[in-house]
Amino acid sequence: MCEANVYLAAEGNAEETLWLESVDKIVPEGPEAWRLTSIFGEQKLITGRIRTMNLVEHRIVFETSREAP
Amino acid sequence: MCEANVYLAAEGNAEETLWLESVDKIVPEGPEAWRLTSIFGEQKLITGRIRTMNLVEHRIVFETSREAP
Repeated sequence: MCEANVYLAAEGNAEETLWLESVDKIVPEGPEAWRLTSIFGEQKLITGRIRTMNLVEHRIVFETSREAP
Repeated sequence: MCEANVYLAAEGNAEETLWLESVDKIVPEGPEAWRLTSIFGEQKLITGRIRTMNLVEHRIVFETSREAP
């Protein structure tokens, strides 16, 4: 299946930490809020921006803003 | 492979039109601008917001804002 792993990084920081595995759905819930749902039905809300998505590598990185780390 | 097809819709409009197939990379290039790269190396710039992503269905939908359709 083509789910992706979602990583989280602080703005301006290259370090990316695994935050949620096997994500299927990503839907915005505000200007910088996103609801993530994994293929197992686990849901998590994330506040931040998308830094990069690499679907073939199953990798999506969000970054949190400096104001709200 | 786990690329996705990208669809485009106008804000407030349910109709979603296929815009770029087999997208691998999506990287922001501004507050509402995104550079998409397909697995074939084709690149396209899109202006808009992400409406929804469904990775298992290989489906990502962007919507263009009313101000800049």
